[in-house]
Amino acid sequence: MPRVFDPGQEIQADFELVRQQLQKGYTGPFLLMDSAVLREKVARFKAAMPRVTPHYAVKCNPDPQVLKVLREAGAGFEIASPAELAMCRALDVPASELYYSNPMRAREAVAEAAAAGVQWYVIDSVTELRKVRAIKPDASFYLRLHTDNTGSVSPLSEKFGVFEDEVAAILDEAVRLRADLAGATFHAGSQCLQPRNWQIGIAAAVRLFDAMRARGLTPRLLNLGGGFPVEHRDAIPAIATIGALINEALEAVPADVRIMAEPGRFLVSDAGWLVCRVIGHTIRKNQPWAYLDAGVFNGLLETTTGIEYDMRSDRTGATIPWVVAGPTCDSMDICSRTQPLPADLQEGDFIYVRNAGAYSNACGSTFNGFALPEVLVV
Amino acid sequence: MPRVFDPGQEIQADFELVRQQLQKGYTGPFLLMDSAVLREKVARFKAAMPRVTPHYAVKCNPDPQVLKVLREAGAGFEIASPAELAMCRALDVPASELYYSNPMRAREAVAEAAAAGVQWYVIDSVTELRKVRAIKPDASFYLRLHTDNTGSVSPLSEKFGVFEDEVAAILDEAVRLRADLAGATFHAGSQCLQPRNWQIGIAAAVRLFDAMRARGLTPRLLNLGGGFPVEHRDAIPAIATIGALINEALEAVPADVRIMAEPGRFLVSDAGWLVCRVIGHTIRKNQPWAYLDAGVFNGLLETTTGIEYDMRSDRTGATIPWVVAGPTCDSMDICSRTQPLPADLQEGDFIYVRNAGAYSNACGSTFNGFALPEVLVV
Repeated sequence: MPRVFDPGQEIQADFELVRQQLQKGYTGPFLLMDSAVLREKVARFKAAMPRVTPHYAVKCNPDPQVLKVLREAGAGFEIASPAELAMCRALDVPASELYYSNPMRAREAVAEAAAAGVQWYVIDSVTELRKVRAIKPDASFYLRLHTDNTGSVSPLSEKFGVFEDEVAAILDEAVRLRADLAGATFHAGSQCLQPRNWQIGIAAAVRLFDAMRARGLTPRLLNLGGGFPVEHRDAIPAIATIGALINEALEAVPADVRIMAEPGRFLVSDAGWLVCRVIGHTIRKNQPWAYLDAGVFNGLLETTTGIEYDMRSDRTGATIPWVVAGPTCDSMDICSRTQPLPADLQEGDFIYVRNAGAYSNACGSTFNGFALPEVLVV
Repeated sequence: MPRVFDPGQEIQADFELVRQQLQKGYTGPFLLMDSAVLREKVARFKAAMPRVTPHYAVKCNPDPQVLKVLREAGAGFEIASPAELAMCRALDVPASELYYSNPMRAREAVAEAAAAGVQWYVIDSVTELRKVRAIKPDASFYLRLHTDNTGSVSPLSEKFGVFEDEVAAILDEAVRLRADLAGATFHAGSQCLQPRNWQIGIAAAVRLFDAMRARGLTPRLLNLGGGFPVEHRDAIPAIATIGALINEALEAVPADVRIMAEPGRFLVSDAGWLVCRVIGHTIRKNQPWAYLDAGVFNGLLETTTGIEYDMRSDRTGATIPWVVAGPTCDSMDICSRTQPLPADLQEGDFIYVRNAGAYSNACGSTFNGFALPEVLVV
């Protein structure tokens, strides 16, 4: 049976749970989620930033049991679609704990959220302000600002976020419509390794609050977004370090402003082991290739956007860099070109992908007929 | 109601079918597949290459009704997984018409195919030859060669395909094992715009056949792979042009060699209109952005690998280049930065994605809770 791996610096799901699961047999890739780690991560987040309420980004891993554990641990939620709204409602999450943080929504989606009682809607355009306002006249809004994403693995500030010179037009329109524009948000970038980005975003929000007050608007929400990193192969700044910098910056924010954040990856990634298997291997041009039964399409999409997972096996020999590919025919289905794995890896070996609870099964497709990893919350 | 678009040079699904569907209402993105076009495409393929039997690449669009129409039109099938095997078996496709063209398979997958009576298995490594041979001693094999992919939108020859200096080891092992290594294949690259690639591949196969005969093996299958292009925004070489070049090259192949190909995209892309809708738009840094209810995750993944779709709307004003993004929060969900669409595009407008029947719903995910396009075969 598998050895127990040396624990890393960060918390990670108990490998003994994987061992127990494999004793029941293996029929395909699965994602094992350790609920103790989910709870611990919520606690760590809160301890690092006492003023900040975490609202879990449902998209990151929408498994109903994951949501249930996070809710019990005291997390609120952030939603991006009517389907995610329905998931939270199925758990009896009060609408007052839901924030609609997708800056572009179909009119029907807004209507559904409004009917369910969701109060807070992000915007980053005049068009969206008008749309939501027309459907829910008493909606409260927070404005997404474009801020620096340098040093994040996946920069986000391009598709969304108001540039500084476009802010005034939205504030003016809010005043004209008498809309309750009362908050600010930004996104530091996914898997953000430069904690300073939050300080930059908070400073931008404080400036926005001044501009809002100057127009008679009353700021009362600051949303720090997501991007809180987790460890894969390389070291990351600890949440306590990030939290200390954020707490310092938050001293400039008045006490009557509610402060929240939208951790996704941070709360669930470390709780998951993705377990899959080597189905074959070969050598091409002197380079060893391993083919797994989970790949870019069925569980490991984020490898195409810069995530380098820590993959492990039961073998203990010296590691070499492998090209690791998924089970489909597609040339895009290559997960790594430098994955350290034992040189004596063999067909049938299990591969354990550490800290894989975020954006894995959630982004999966059944392309080529390969099933999504089963999610097991224990 | 929508105008009827000017037909392009290539065949495309009847837009009247879209119009009829929309009269029933719209509840979300859908992929409408025109079965008359599916049949016509099979006929065009056969007419262009009379010696070549088309075996549809199921992964490209695995909708059961699509498979049924293609089967009735006289196509065989190519499979990549046990799930695709099951789909074909559900249509009573004889195992003799199935080719297992994924060069890496789990042992269990080979066993399933063998039990179902599948005879032909592609290989491109000694390890896979041994694996299949151990499970099905009388299996017939075709060897996938690495050939030139220059001029294809998505080059494929890296993840799979034997390099020339690695061929001898596989042939020798086949002789040693008394395995029925009896064919050759190659892949010209997805959406291949350089027909010469097939001539290069055929010439490589002819050289391989000589090497096989020199070892006492008896070549009797040549598989031309896929990559046959379809039209999106730019002109493509016609199938008749590609066929003429292939037919010329095939004169070097003995008459007792069965010749097949694995068109996927070519048979189904033109049959499909993906219909979606503008949910919002804005201007960022003087650049117009349109957000659709279908994007990279739910239907348009191939936009990340070089496909530039032809998107149309009902508006008739002058077109400008739009950035077109999907409905998720993800920064990866951007479908085009130069999509020509009318300058007066508005929220609620329908967007018609022409020739979208290939690798659209098939690669889709429900990330962020957005549904996959419904497939409607009419």
